[in-house]
Amino acid sequence: MAAIEARLAELGIELPAVVPPVAAYTPAVVDSGHVYTSGQLPMVSGALPATGKVGDGHGLIPADDAKKYARICALNALAAVKSVIGSLDRVTRVVKVVGFVASDPSFTGQPGVINGASEVLGEIFGDAGVHARSAVGVAVLPLDAPVEVELIVAYE
Amino acid sequence: MAAIEARLAELGIELPAVVPPVAAYTPAVVDSGHVYTSGQLPMVSGALPATGKVGDGHGLIPADDAKKYARICALNALAAVKSVIGSLDRVTRVVKVVGFVASDPSFTGQPGVINGASEVLGEIFGDAGVHARSAVGVAVLPLDAPVEVELIVAYE
Amino acid sequence: MAAIEARLAELGIELPAVVPPVAAYTPAVVDSGHVYTSGQLPMVSGALPATGKVGDGHGLIPADDAKKYARICALNALAAVKSVIGSLDRVTRVVKVVGFVASDPSFTGQPGVINGASEVLGEIFGDAGVHARSAVGVAVLPLDAPVEVELIVAYE
Repeated sequence: MAAIEARLAELGIELPAVVPPVAAYTPAVVDSGHVYTSGQLPMVSGALPATGKVGDGHGLIPADDAKKYARICALNALAAVKSVIGSLDRVTRVVKVVGFVASDPSFTGQPGVINGASEVLGEIFGDAGVHARSAVGVAVLPLDAPVEVELIVAYE
Repeated sequence: MAAIEARLAELGIELPAVVPPVAAYTPAVVDSGHVYTSGQLPMVSGALPATGKVGDGHGLIPADDAKKYARICALNALAAVKSVIGSLDRVTRVVKVVGFVASDPSFTGQPGVINGASEVLGEIFGDAGVHARSAVGVAVLPLDAPVEVELIVAYE
Repeated sequence: MAAIEARLAELGIELPAVVPPVAAYTPAVVDSGHVYTSGQLPMVSGALPATGKVGDGHGLIPADDAKKYARICALNALAAVKSVIGSLDRVTRVVKVVGFVASDPSFTGQPGVINGASEVLGEIFGDAGVHARSAVGVAVLPLDAPVEVELIVAYE
């Protein structure tokens, strides 16, 4: 019955290890049939693949790259979810995604960036992965990360 | 018993059509007696009435205008709520509002702007419209929108 | 059985009076065994102890000071929680913290700042105070506050 685990394998996705919090909190909390994740940075093996603000122009991170980082954030969030409920097969719905994009003030493509998270959730969970979402452009993120994503998921 | 629909009529408020998501998500999700909306931009008939940052000075959107846009965001959010539960008469409480204001760094009047959302929720739902709220000033919003508002409401 | 009240006394923490909202909303809402607080500014006796952006350099608020303000935000949030459920002894878990830091674009130490909130929640509630958390750097906050913190807590 490990449908989601099988789906991850089909998609060639290997969930990362849970990213340790960079401060005094925990990666995910279970509460009344829900998991709230902490905001996840696009950490890969303990380091950010890029730092800076997203936008067009010299010294900025292109939106296409940022979209890939948002996907990594989502996978890190799922690793956090799995760490507290044991298996992603228990997830019944991805309820809410909030995506923060460290943005050059002229960059307005936050929805496309956060699609990197939304699309991988759809690939993995199908209809149960379709969520409500807010995407905003913030001044700067922890460790100068380009993207941060948090999730609320329902589970049984 | 369509008290809220009658109240909307009294207030001369016609709910807009649901604004289609600008990306890979859905306008609202039903979860355990709650509706989580996506962040809503002040779309009117498919277009933003204004773009840019809110503040005082040349080229900025005045706070009074932004307050009107926050009201539109709230009505778009209610349209999203209605689309998933059928009628706003089922709403028992507006639990939480988060309002993001694309802000010139010198503009600190975010609460007044987001009152455009809070006040119309109070007009429509009375005591059940009184909510917890966060208002913050962000660097930039999707499509260069001046305001974005998301809701959590409880319903029966 | 007033364990938390006793713990506050041990810690020498006196909860402040509830900070009145600066706009058309309420400090906290009770919903299905949870309390959602509004975003809390570091108000002390009705005034902000400092205003401006957090960062390193002339005219900016040092991170160490901002961390103290985040602690004040958390205590203001707990005062709001207590105002709607009567006693902090009813809190079973701090579920989620969101911390917004008004940040100079070069400042990336938001996690350390919001630790001011996370640590005091841990001191007060022990294991029940360990939460999921997002920390982001925003352009500007209401009234030019350096920090804003909101909570979701579960209670019985």
